[in-house]
This record gives sequence, C-alpha cells and structure tokens, in this order.
Amino acid sequence: MLGAAASLLNIKVLVLDSGDSAPAKQVIAPTPPLSHVDGKFTDEESVRQLASQVDVLTVEIEHVNAQVLEDIMKDSSRPIQVHPHPSTIKIIQNKLTQKRHLTKYGVPVVDCQEVIASSADPSTSMQGAIKTLGLPLMLKSQTLAYDGRGNYVVETEDDVGKAQTALGDRPLYAERWAPFVKEIAVMIVRSASGTVVSYPAVETVHKENICHIVFAPLRGTDQELDGKARRVAEKAIQTFEGAGVFGVEMFLMPDGEILVNEIAPRPHNSGHYTIEACYSSQYENHLRAILDLPLGSTELRVPAAVMLNLIGASSDMSEITRVCQKALTVPGAAIHLYGKSESRKGRKMGHITIVGNSEAEVRSRLRPLLEALPDNDPTSTEQYAPLPPQIGFSHRYPLVGVIMGSDSDLPVMLPGARILDKFSIPYELTIVSAHRTPDRLVNYARSAAARGLRVIIAGAGGAAHLPGMVASMTALPVIGVPVKGSSLDGVDSLHSIVQMPRGIPVATVAINNGTNAGLLAARILGSSDPQLLKATEAYSRNLEKEVLGKVDNLAAVGWEKYEVKK
Amino acid sequence: MLGAAASLLNIKVLVLDSGDSAPAKQVIAPTPPLSHVDGKFTDEESVRQLASQVDVLTVEIEHVNAQVLEDIMKDSSRPIQVHPHPSTIKIIQNKLTQKRHLTKYGVPVVDCQEVIASSADPSTSMQGAIKTLGLPLMLKSQTLAYDGRGNYVVETEDDVGKAQTALGDRPLYAERWAPFVKEIAVMIVRSASGTVVSYPAVETVHKENICHIVFAPLRGTDQELDGKARRVAEKAIQTFEGAGVFGVEMFLMPDGEILVNEIAPRPHNSGHYTIEACYSSQYENHLRAILDLPLGSTELRVPAAVMLNLIGASSDMSEITRVCQKALTVPGAAIHLYGKSESRKGRKMGHITIVGNSEAEVRSRLRPLLEALPDNDPTSTEQYAPLPPQIGFSHRYPLVGVIMGSDSDLPVMLPGARILDKFSIPYELTIVSAHRTPDRLVNYARSAAARGLRVIIAGAGGAAHLPGMVASMTALPVIGVPVKGSSLDGVDSLHSIVQMPRGIPVATVAINNGTNAGLLAARILGSSDPQLLKATEAYSRNLEKEVLGKVDNLAAVGWEKYEVKK
Repeated sequence: MLGAAASLLNIKVLVLDSGDSAPAKQVIAPTPPLSHVDGKFTDEESVRQLASQVDVLTVEIEHVNAQVLEDIMKDSSRPIQVHPHPSTIKIIQNKLTQKRHLTKYGVPVVDCQEVIASSADPSTSMQGAIKTLGLPLMLKSQTLAYDGRGNYVVETEDDVGKAQTALGDRPLYAERWAPFVKEIAVMIVRSASGTVVSYPAVETVHKENICHIVFAPLRGTDQELDGKARRVAEKAIQTFEGAGVFGVEMFLMPDGEILVNEIAPRPHNSGHYTIEACYSSQYENHLRAILDLPLGSTELRVPAAVMLNLIGASSDMSEITRVCQKALTVPGAAIHLYGKSESRKGRKMGHITIVGNSEAEVRSRLRPLLEALPDNDPTSTEQYAPLPPQIGFSHRYPLVGVIMGSDSDLPVMLPGARILDKFSIPYELTIVSAHRTPDRLVNYARSAAARGLRVIIAGAGGAAHLPGMVASMTALPVIGVPVKGSSLDGVDSLHSIVQMPRGIPVATVAINNGTNAGLLAARILGSSDPQLLKATEAYSRNLEKEVLGKVDNLAAVGWEKYEVKK
Repeated sequence: MLGAAASLLNIKVLVLDSGDSAPAKQVIAPTPPLSHVDGKFTDEESVRQLASQVDVLTVEIEHVNAQVLEDIMKDSSRPIQVHPHPSTIKIIQNKLTQKRHLTKYGVPVVDCQEVIASSADPSTSMQGAIKTLGLPLMLKSQTLAYDGRGNYVVETEDDVGKAQTALGDRPLYAERWAPFVKEIAVMIVRSASGTVVSYPAVETVHKENICHIVFAPLRGTDQELDGKARRVAEKAIQTFEGAGVFGVEMFLMPDGEILVNEIAPRPHNSGHYTIEACYSSQYENHLRAILDLPLGSTELRVPAAVMLNLIGASSDMSEITRVCQKALTVPGAAIHLYGKSESRKGRKMGHITIVGNSEAEVRSRLRPLLEALPDNDPTSTEQYAPLPPQIGFSHRYPLVGVIMGSDSDLPVMLPGARILDKFSIPYELTIVSAHRTPDRLVNYARSAAARGLRVIIAGAGGAAHLPGMVASMTALPVIGVPVKGSSLDGVDSLHSIVQMPRGIPVATVAINNGTNAGLLAARILGSSDPQLLKATEAYSRNLEKEVLGKVDNLAAVGWEKYEVKK
C-alpha cells in the first residue's frame, strides 16, 4: 500500500522482503541497476544492501535491528535519512520501555511493572506485581509481541506458572487489567520538523487479539471524545524523534479516561480506512512526512467508513475469496487483497473498506460481509451490523432524532416518523420533556451530534420550550412542530417555537404538521445526498399526480356527486 | 491505473507496451513464467504473444489491428475472451463508420458526410460537403485521430487546400460545425450480458483539442440534463457488442439538444475523476465488466470533484513537478504521475483530481494549480476557478440562495447574508417576486438543485407566498423569513409562511429574523460538513461568552448604572 502511494508520486521505492513475490514487490518494479533485496528485515547484511541504494530508509515493522539502522544513519561515507528515528524504534519495540517513556512525559498509560521470573524483589517479582496491580492482570512479553502474541491473561495465582511457560524466557512485564468500554485508535503524522497532525479517532474491534473491524468516525455520547483522544495521541507522538506516521491504540475507560495501550511507529491496520475515507491516506502522509513534503489533509472525505480485515481461518484461500465475491455486490466496498500466495490461520490476507453516507449505511453494508466470513460469529454480526429495527422501534444508528415533550404528542409526531420510514431514513423516537426531564434534555441535546444525529425534530405544545432549548444546546438543525393544545388553537405553541431570539434558530413547521417535519428532515438530509434528493422530488411529483387524479375525478363525476375524502 | 485496480483484486495482469519501463509495467510484476511483452500494440506478433499467455484480452487504445483480435478470439485451439469485442473496435476506430452506426440506431450525432479528395460527386466531394453542411466545418481524418490530431477547421473555401495537405492522404470526412455551449461526457460500463450503467455526466473542457479539465457533477440550469446525457450515452453503448467501459463525449447545443461527438471503447480521460470521486472507479468497473463480475456502484461518493490534466508544455519535466508541488499543499488533491521518463509538448504526464464539499470549494482549490501550469492562461483561470466575489455580490457557485420578494425586504435579509459571509458559505442574493415575477420564480426554484444550491432562504412580507411557492417547486430545504409589513405586525407573513399544507414544508424562522435564517442554513449545511458544524458550535459558545460578559458587567457596575446596549 505504501508502494502504491509512492508510484502515484513517481517516488522510486526499493523493498527488502523475503522472496521475489513479496506483496510490495508485485506492485513496484525497480529501475535497473537498482534492485529489491531478497532477505529478512532482521538480517544486517540485507538491511545494508537496501540502505546502499536509497536516500531515505523507512521501516514498516518495528521488530528490526535498530542499532544497525542507527549505524547506517551515522555512517558519514554515504549519509541517508532513516525514519522513524532508530531511537524511536528502540523505545517502541520494547513495550515496557515504551510505557515508561510515555509515563515520563505525562502520557496516561495502564499501570505496569517489570517481572523477572526468578526475582524475589517485590518490585520485580510476579508476586509483587499481583500485589500492586491486582488480579486479573496481563503478563506480556516486553519484545517481539504483536497481534496478541506474547500476551497472557493471569486470572488467578494458579495461572502464573502456565503464563511463564507460555511466554518462555523472553523479558516480561505485568500490566493492570484494563476493563475498557471501547478500544480506540488515532493515526498521527509527524513531520521531520516535529509537527504532529492527527487523523480522526476511530473505534477498533479486536478478535482473538487481532484487529478485526475499524469504524470511522468514532461515535459516542461524549462530544469531546474525538478531541480528547486526538490530543492524547498527539502528545504521545510529540515525545519521539523522526518523521512518519504512528498508530496509537488506546483504551476508553468507564470513567471517560483515555489510556494509551501501545504505539506502532509505522502505517497501521487501524489506519487502512484512510485510503478511501480521508483526503490523504496514512501511506501518502507517511511518504510526505519522511520526504519532508507538505503534509496532506487528514480530514474525512466521506461521512462514514468501516474497515474489515480479511484474516485467514485456514489454508483454504477460497474462504477469503468468498468474502471478496460478496463485497463485489456491496456499493462502496473497496477490496484490498495483498497478493499473499498462501492463506493460513491468523494471517492478514487483505482488507475491505466500505464507505457510505451514514453509520447506519456502512453497518448495513458490512452485514453480508460478516456473514460471509469463514469463522463468522452471529452474535458479533448482531453487535456490529444489526438489521434495521422493526417499524415502531428506534434505529441504533439514527440520523434523525424525533422527540416530543409528552406521549400525548405522539399522534402528531407519528406521521413524521412514517415519512422517515418511507424514505428509509434511520431515526429514533422518544420522549424528552423540557420541564419534567430537564437533565435528560441537556444530555440528549449535548450528545446528539457526537452520536451521529444530523437533524432533530422536536414537537411540543403550550409553552413549547423543547425545540428551542434543544437548539440552544446543539449546532444541528432543529425542526419544531407546534402541537395544538387545549387552548389558543396551537398559536401559543407556534409562537413559542418560532419566535426564537437572534442566534438560535428553530425550523418551525405548521401547527400539528408532523408530516412536514418529517419531510423537512428528509429535504435537509437530501441536500447533501443526491439519491435522497431524487426520492423527495419523486414524492412531490406523486402529490401532483394525486391532485391531478382528483381533477379528473371531479370532471368525471361532476361536483354535485363528488365526495371529498378526509 | 488499470493495473493498480487489478492488483487490489489480485488479478494477474500482463502488459503489451514498448520498453521495460512503460508506465503499467512499473506497477505490475508478472509471476514467472508469465511475462510482459515488449512491443507495439500494432504489431501482430506481439499481440499474439500476449494473447498466448492470458484468458482475457483487453485494449486501452482503439487504434489496434481489430482483425488480429478477431482471429485470436476465433482461434479454437485456445479460446480466450477479447473485450471490447473486435467488431466494436472496428466500428469505433473509424469515426465516419462510428457516426453512421450511431445514426442507424437513432443516436443523435453531428451531421457529417464522407469526403474523397478527388471526388466530383457532390455526395462525397469537398464542395458537396460545404454545400450540405455549410461553413465553417470540420474536416476530419476517419482513422487514427485523437487529442485533436486529424482535425482541421475549414473556415472558408480557401482553407480546403490547406486542410487536405495537413491531413494527408488519410480517408476523410466533413462534419457540420457544432456551436456547442458545453462539452459533456459520460462513462458507461457495459457488462458481458449487455447491461449498461452510467457514471454521472461531467463537464469537460478542452485546450488545443486535448482534455484539460473535467468537472463532476455536471451543473446547469436544466434539472433534466444529467439524466438526458446519461440516457443518450447509454443508448449509444447499447448498440455495441462486448464488455468494458466506454467514454462518450457529447456536445450540449444551445437549444438543449445533446449530440454524441465521439466514443472511446476503453477507460477514458473524462473518467479519471472516478478513482477518487465514485464508489467504484472506471478501471475497477472495466475489470469487473470484462471478467463478468458484478458491476460496481457508479455513484459519486463526494459532493464535487475536478480533474486537471498534467500535459507537457516542453521537454522540461520541472514544469510538471512544479504543479505537483503546489498540489501537495491543496487539501483533497490527489496526484497521479504516470511514470513517463520524458516530458514533451502535448504529452499526458499525469493528472490531479481534487475532491471537496462543494463546487465552490473544488474550484477554489483548483485555482493555484491552474496558476502553476507551465502555459497558464489567466483568462481561463478566471473562467474556471474565479476568486470569491467581493462582499455584497453573488458567488458564481453558491450553496445557498438568498431571495426576497421585494428590495424593501433587504434590511431584514442582510443580517442573514452576513452570517453566511462569517462562515465563508458561498451564496447568491437576489430578488424573486412570487406575484410580480412568477416566471422567474418558477425558473429559479426548478433549476435550484441542478445549479448546485443546497438551501434556499426566502423572505417575504404580507401575503408572503414566496417561500411556500419555491418549496413547492424544489426538493431542497427552504427557509422562510416572515417580514414585518405595514399591518398585523408580521403575523400575517408568519402564518402565510408557516401554515403550509401537508407535503410541502417551509422551515420558518422568527419574524424579521434574517440572522436566524442564515444560521439555520449554516446548521443545515453543517449537518453534513463536520468543519462547518464545529464553526457553528463555536458561534454558539461565543454567544454564551457574550452574555456571561454582561453578567460580569452587571455585577460590576450594578443595575442602577448598567446601560443596555441596543
């Protein structure tokens, strides 16, 4: 993927990897006399052979010999640049060193401490760790650990022996158990001069410790979450040297705290979605960073995206092909097969990114792909890509929130809900009373945009404060429906809703006209969705046809016999 | 680009082109014993060498020996598929045959007739052509003509000799001069079973007969234009055999008629924008079509895109590099350099696609690139990428239309316009009176969406029919501003605007509150534009700060001395 990005910019790339058909070598033909290197990235001679041919050296895996890279960089006979800086790789490739480094710079991480098998010193013994960090805890290898390899969950003291056997004689450390509510990740670009910019925060879902699904952007009830996650990730990467992209994986804890789990000093699986979903991909920005070119925009260019990893379940390649064949029928799905000649359990064979107009859309497009996975778990399909709800129940990923001050407003709001059903717009419908549930009102309005809502329809009668109060606590467009009450024929509600002060608009529709509120929501969403715009145009043409039918009928039966339908 | 699309699907591709460093060979490494072919696409032996190694053969240029392809297809010893069908290539590679074919199937084309230099028969003589088609006319080579090579404009009878000399002894034909108002193009995908689907219609701009800029989607005042252009293009491609993508170039005539200019039976320059702007690119869909896989969605996944060709002006490669360096600073700009080792005048060295939230945005991002072109023409910069207008004048590519029934409404509407200025939202402001300019009203409302407007703000007083009538003739959201008239304190306007019948909503704001109309427009646009959403959130926080400042001031000076500012 880095090679594909480089070829668009005519940047010449040489690759060190084993074999002639390594994925990157399939899409980059070197210009003779330059040539790819056939070897292991851990082999000093191969690294030197690559370095002798290039101006800038970068790595896409951190388990390299950082000392060799440092020597190459310092070799004054032929100075080349190495990114990320070998010092950064050294810190990151040892997870304990990485966590201590982050802690030193005030970046929040999970508590941890070193564990030495034979130690009796409570500051380094397993018993000491259990005492300090509690149980369960994670026993982890300090080095050469990724995709869950090198991690062991110690639930009871009895597990200690098994854990140490499983992890072998590698240097270990223990980590406090982190009962996170969500895993999140942020890709960071660091320029040679140390400027850092972040991509949007995303939600990552792991399966057997391997990245399984990524959702962008991150949704939740905390309107500050994206900003908070990005600031933590930026702060972490500011502490390192050298240029390039970095993947920062984090835990969102139940109290809203964000802890850094681990950092990858390279393009990362949690950033694959950027190829289709952002203005500049992580790969293009990695190149820009290490070549000291202006950094590209990290903004999303689509409303929603989801990335699904294609991970081998066995040696049977047709299991992967089957998911891809399904993806060919899914609009917005981009298949990325890596050209690996053999599949095996746990091997990353490719990924599929789906982009769409909304969270609801990308999740509904994801569903058939999850179902086609070789080792599909129906529970997780329901969790991440549920079917739309039955009529009369709220969608889990709504674009429109329909709220009313009282259940007595339901008959007025129902026709609006039915309009949204007609246009297949995902929505939720509930009761929020300005005067009787003011805290709920605040929470609802403040979290609306972060939850992914784009329009709110609020109905209220009498003093009818709900629409205006919601509008004062969100920047989303709020549609107000004046509900006719017991007195004043609804004019009280109308004036309460429409006569908002300068600065806070409410889009007011006619008294009791829930239908028009639904249609206005559809028009608002349609203004940025050409398919929906066409659907609302067709709706108007149908109204015209209906009336023209009445014209004919009136002329046919005569007005004396014409019956007016209610 | 076809190779890059193929590698994502792990489709093995072999290339026939001259030299080892041909662009496609740089991004596709064949798996031995298969190998690319070094040769000319016109060389029979080379074509056969390629064919002997593949299951499906496709061409990216129509000037091939179609007979050889047909022979290969019919060779029963090793049957392979050839797409597009050689019969299609044969028809298309001769422009006169192509036009006669289209005419036979009722596809509208520019009138033309064969010209034989020595002929005295008026149906084939140059004089006969001038008599039938008038002057000026285009004298064109029937074959081997592209990028304007093989065309000659005959303005007067004196030009005839020069034209024939210039075009040599190739077979010729004459074409009626087509004084088009716009050049448009549509990419078509044709499956093996003959299903055709179209990409959105785009505007193409040529410079010295070479594709220069492409704008997607096509904008104009005719709401049916995109549909009409796509239907013409689909109809044209339905007449051919075989699978693949086809570029259909057309003229939009002053009377709204669409004429097919010419067809390319392959991925086409006018479809390069699809890589970044559509769900599936023309290249991916070409592969899907020729491999009989499900076709991908042709829908746009961004609101607006522009493609700029990078055409050599001389042998100086730095002229191209300079434009790319500028593009690195432009958000949403994707650089595609083709890896050609030498630049020369008229050679396509690459292209840049810019995507963005609106026509105004992509055009403003295009401007610095046009300015960096080696042979930049400032007039064309002003034409295609103008600076935003000065305050108080309408933007040429507005997202919001601010209209009012009378110039007396201006003081009420101005604060709304200023809100749009504050958020840098492109808009136009004008007078449309429902009762005094009813035809203008119809034209304005009916063309609004096709022109690219996304929201309309309409202000009116008294009977105040403007907002509702506009809403009944567009599917865009319409915001109504009731203007206080000489009687009834504006309640007459409010009720006229808000009390719309079921089916046609108007988003009504408070009486005389143009500010809130502007803010509501910003909120509506912001609901699909995260940056704008943030800006409107910041606006609300500023209102909060302002009032909190007054809180402090009131407490500081005491209410007896406090001065209320108007």
